Amino acid sequence: MLPSESIERVVELFASLPTIGKKTARRLAFHLLRQSEQDVEQFATALTEMRSRVRECGVCHTFTDADVCGICASPKRTQSVICVVEQPSDVMAIERTGDFRGRYHVLHGALSPLDGIGPEDLRLKELIARMTPEVEEVILALNPTVEGEVTTQYIAKLSSPLGVRITRIARGVPMGSDLEFADDATLARAFEGRTPL
Amino acid sequence: MLPSESIERVVELFASLPTIGKKTARRLAFHLLRQSEQDVEQFATALTEMRSRVRECGVCHTFTDADVCGICASPKRTQSVICVVEQPSDVMAIERTGDFRGRYHVLHGALSPLDGIGPEDLRLKELIARMTPEVEEVILALNPTVEGEVTTQYIAKLSSPLGVRITRIARGVPMGSDLEFADDATLARAFEGRTPL
Repeated sequence: MLPSESIERVVELFASLPTIGKKTARRLAFHLLRQSEQDVEQFATALTEMRSRVRECGVCHTFTDADVCGICASPKRTQSVICVVEQPSDVMAIERTGDFRGRYHVLHGALSPLDGIGPEDLRLKELIARMTPEVEEVILALNPTVEGEVTTQYIAKLSSPLGVRITRIARGVPMGSDLEFADDATLARAFEGRTPL
Repeated sequence: MLPSESIERVVELFASLPTIGKKTARRLAFHLLRQSEQDVEQFATALTEMRSRVRECGVCHTFTDADVCGICASPKRTQSVICVVEQPSDVMAIERTGDFRGRYHVLHGALSPLDGIGPEDLRLKELIARMTPEVEEVILALNPTVEGEVTTQYIAKLSSPLGVRITRIARGVPMGSDLEFADDATLARAFEGRTPL
């Protein structure tokens, strides 16, 4: 029994978020109760502001506060290479490496017939529209899952009439890992994708 | 680099909560961006409503939406036994057992000179005021930590002139645990607190 309906409601809402269980949800609610009313207000406002301000970039469809995201608007990023990813969080992961100087295209998901996600649910039309003659390479960086694999093959087929060079990121043993514990599929891909020294 | 300032702000705020790291904070922010604007608004409102509605019960000082909490207002709960705990979350933990039929008193902390928490920072005056002649027993259920121990001794000393029976909950090996892995202090307490069969 919770001592208050409004605490109960917040606990339920926190527990509905990914990675947060009932116990952590309770802890978070009680933590907020020990904060000042003003701090909690700021937290709530940040959430609604984020949701209402953030939209998809008109070019690459990642999340942004502006009409066009900082990456697409930057003159330093080459227009000739497009990296295709599933989610805006993937853009952030690749940006952290600091190695990629092209632009992105976010599909907002991957093909998954079982979940009812078909081509029209992804930003695929928009991707094809971006494959103009000045684009030299489209790098597919989808998740190494069944859905990612299906989507990768689908895009490769879809874009073959356009004559654009399509590549995919390497799948192999992750850095710092132990070969002994790599799964069969990963090891098989690593051998398949071996490169000359 | 995050693609949006408003996402960055929410990630920071989530990461400032206990048990939530930067990675989980990012995941939560992106989860909320995939929810409807209305859902996020409801979440934000639940937070501010909880913080503004919830206050301390006028009797036991646990968190409640009303002037007096459901436990203190219930005629089914005996007034003759008071269980003293550190936090409102401890009340919830004890209530889940369903065994305790008395009332509570929440101190909102424990004595901790190093953190600058003295007797005047806790609801100690209020506890002493509740130790009227009709109270037969005060059960101290503070955390088995140095701070909890110091506070337990302090309350015992403070209330000794009142002639109320003061007890403390047993400290010993937890149910379902393995004796082999119990720490020395716990084992010592378990032997000290042994009971006849």
